[in-house]
Amino acid sequence: MREVAVIGIGLTKFGELWNKSFRQLITEAGSKAILDSGIEGKDIDAMYIGSMSSGRFIGQEHIGALVADASGFSHMHIPATRVEGACASGGLAVRQGYLSIVSGVNDVVVIGGIEKMNDVGGVSATETLATAADQEWEAFFGATFPALYAMIAKRHMHKYKTTKEQLAQVAVKNHANGAKNPNAQYRREIPIEMVLNASPVATPLGLFDCSPVSDGSAAIVMCAADIAKKYKDNPVKIIGSGQGSDTLPLHGRRDICTLDATVHAAKKAYKQANIKPSDVDLAEVHDCFTIAEICAIEDLGFVKKGEGGKAIDRKITTLDGTIPVNTSGGLKSKGHPVGATGVAQVVEIVQQLRGEADRRQVKNAKIGLAHNVGGSGATSVVHIMEAM
Amino acid sequence: MREVAVIGIGLTKFGELWNKSFRQLITEAGSKAILDSGIEGKDIDAMYIGSMSSGRFIGQEHIGALVADASGFSHMHIPATRVEGACASGGLAVRQGYLSIVSGVNDVVVIGGIEKMNDVGGVSATETLATAADQEWEAFFGATFPALYAMIAKRHMHKYKTTKEQLAQVAVKNHANGAKNPNAQYRREIPIEMVLNASPVATPLGLFDCSPVSDGSAAIVMCAADIAKKYKDNPVKIIGSGQGSDTLPLHGRRDICTLDATVHAAKKAYKQANIKPSDVDLAEVHDCFTIAEICAIEDLGFVKKGEGGKAIDRKITTLDGTIPVNTSGGLKSKGHPVGATGVAQVVEIVQQLRGEADRRQVKNAKIGLAHNVGGSGATSVVHIMEAM
Repeated sequence: MREVAVIGIGLTKFGELWNKSFRQLITEAGSKAILDSGIEGKDIDAMYIGSMSSGRFIGQEHIGALVADASGFSHMHIPATRVEGACASGGLAVRQGYLSIVSGVNDVVVIGGIEKMNDVGGVSATETLATAADQEWEAFFGATFPALYAMIAKRHMHKYKTTKEQLAQVAVKNHANGAKNPNAQYRREIPIEMVLNASPVATPLGLFDCSPVSDGSAAIVMCAADIAKKYKDNPVKIIGSGQGSDTLPLHGRRDICTLDATVHAAKKAYKQANIKPSDVDLAEVHDCFTIAEICAIEDLGFVKKGEGGKAIDRKITTLDGTIPVNTSGGLKSKGHPVGATGVAQVVEIVQQLRGEADRRQVKNAKIGLAHNVGGSGATSVVHIMEAM
Repeated sequence: MREVAVIGIGLTKFGELWNKSFRQLITEAGSKAILDSGIEGKDIDAMYIGSMSSGRFIGQEHIGALVADASGFSHMHIPATRVEGACASGGLAVRQGYLSIVSGVNDVVVIGGIEKMNDVGGVSATETLATAADQEWEAFFGATFPALYAMIAKRHMHKYKTTKEQLAQVAVKNHANGAKNPNAQYRREIPIEMVLNASPVATPLGLFDCSPVSDGSAAIVMCAADIAKKYKDNPVKIIGSGQGSDTLPLHGRRDICTLDATVHAAKKAYKQANIKPSDVDLAEVHDCFTIAEICAIEDLGFVKKGEGGKAIDRKITTLDGTIPVNTSGGLKSKGHPVGATGVAQVVEIVQQLRGEADRRQVKNAKIGLAHNVGGSGATSVVHIMEAM
């Protein structure tokens, strides 16, 4: 199978960016990635864009073509495709770009992820985010995402004795990492008391257990691995790519504490990469809520099912732990512009594997993993990367 | 490069289907395609779904996972991805499924296209369709799709002396074909006077120059060509696939009478198939408006630029002409559930190449082409197929 490498990365600041439009954000991230990669516009064979709900947020569908056009590539008539899988849209765009290079049809592909969630007119972000859940079985009855993940948290606490303090420690850790990330939405460390005493959103989840509503964009340039060093001295190879699905509503699952879509996607990715979970040096996981990070480190095989809470107590996922998780600050502190997230995770891993992560650099990082989830786990995408 | 074949097709009736939901439509089309293909559920490696604006129409994003779930495949955790490119969403889904098989990662893929545009609450279909245009430069100022295509028509009439009668003849032909298609939304022939005297929508386009607002779904099963005959006696090979983009708004184009995205996509597809336009026996083209079919037969190279109107007069595109176009009735008469259209075009071509098109069968059909456009031409996808 043809191998693929990431040769360029670009990221905007994440946050409430009232003075930046959708078009400004995606072209900023894209330009940075292209400049970083060493390619020229004429080298680009295709573009893939991940965005969850541009139609509802900014009244604009058809954003594959929009992005190619806004980036100044309309005269090249290159294929430009939008991919959507709720909050996993970015990860899915990475995977489609990857597959298109593996196919041999494309050599160089630009992948963007974007969401503009603030300053979007009369639409409530919570209501639009609920379109990632099951409209007929969940959203219609008023279930929003904090409510769905609160149910997962309640069950996890009941079944595995996971505590509110363990959930809170996830937020504390991710804010500590985000404080070291210049692009993060929230750049301050928070004490555990602040998390524990925050306003409840959906019990047991409080305000600081939830990722924010964010604007932002991320982009990467990928190419066939055998031509990567022509453009870039330190490319990062994608050594595993896996994707999985599950029931759209939570009630259909075998076990709501396990995201089988993640288990399935990770299994595929590990097999392709020919590694074990213990070989992974760091991971960006989908912590849309603190409980989601606990489930993720279990489902990805870093710890056994049910032991995620205890693993947080043991601090194995901190920057100097055995498996640092969400060194970027994660969705929780870096921010969660939903369509951008999956691409931004790859940006962080590449930065770490290149040794360019500055104050949040993980020592001797050789293999990194990115894990992006849609909805309450109906879609999951896992990519494993290694420095070349 | 690995070759790919279509082994199963499925289509719902198109129309105002007040008694059928999004989920019912997509599972009906998908089940038909799977039954037709000879595969079993366990054979499916991935699903791709084309839909333009499920988020706005039915308040539901994340429909890749929804479709896998509603189809009963959630326990298999197969990758399920939604692809969007406005009215070209279906064609893009076909192309992504195709690329994923070419890559060698997938062997058997199900592709669905779907739109539910009636019975969708307070949303105006015209306003949601306008999200395929440029929100900031077109839709914001009130330009809807009839208006944009009316500008193309005006220019074509001015530059090439194309007449209202020639536009009308496109509608007459497509209604004559649609009358022979049991799944078409409109199943009656119409006289040219009815088209010419219809209420104006956006001059020079009248009501019968416009495709309708429709509900419907289409699905196909594709697999690696070397295993196709294991499942199906008469597979149809995809011998060319091309995709192109252009400026999102009309005003940026080199020439608004030419869809350069189509020219580019067709060039790629013809080159891959190693054929000339004159080798094509029949085509399904994107006639969202009558003028669009005239531009399409020019841009696809069936006639020279500017001679599309005269070609209609010469009746070369009728069922017994030299290059029958839109034997299904086209978007005009079969209906245009936007995300379904690109997949439904492939369904028609496969039916024709198998010799199963009944009263609308084209004699000696060996090579067929499907042409799907997003917006006013910012995205275009072309697939060329041949019986195996």
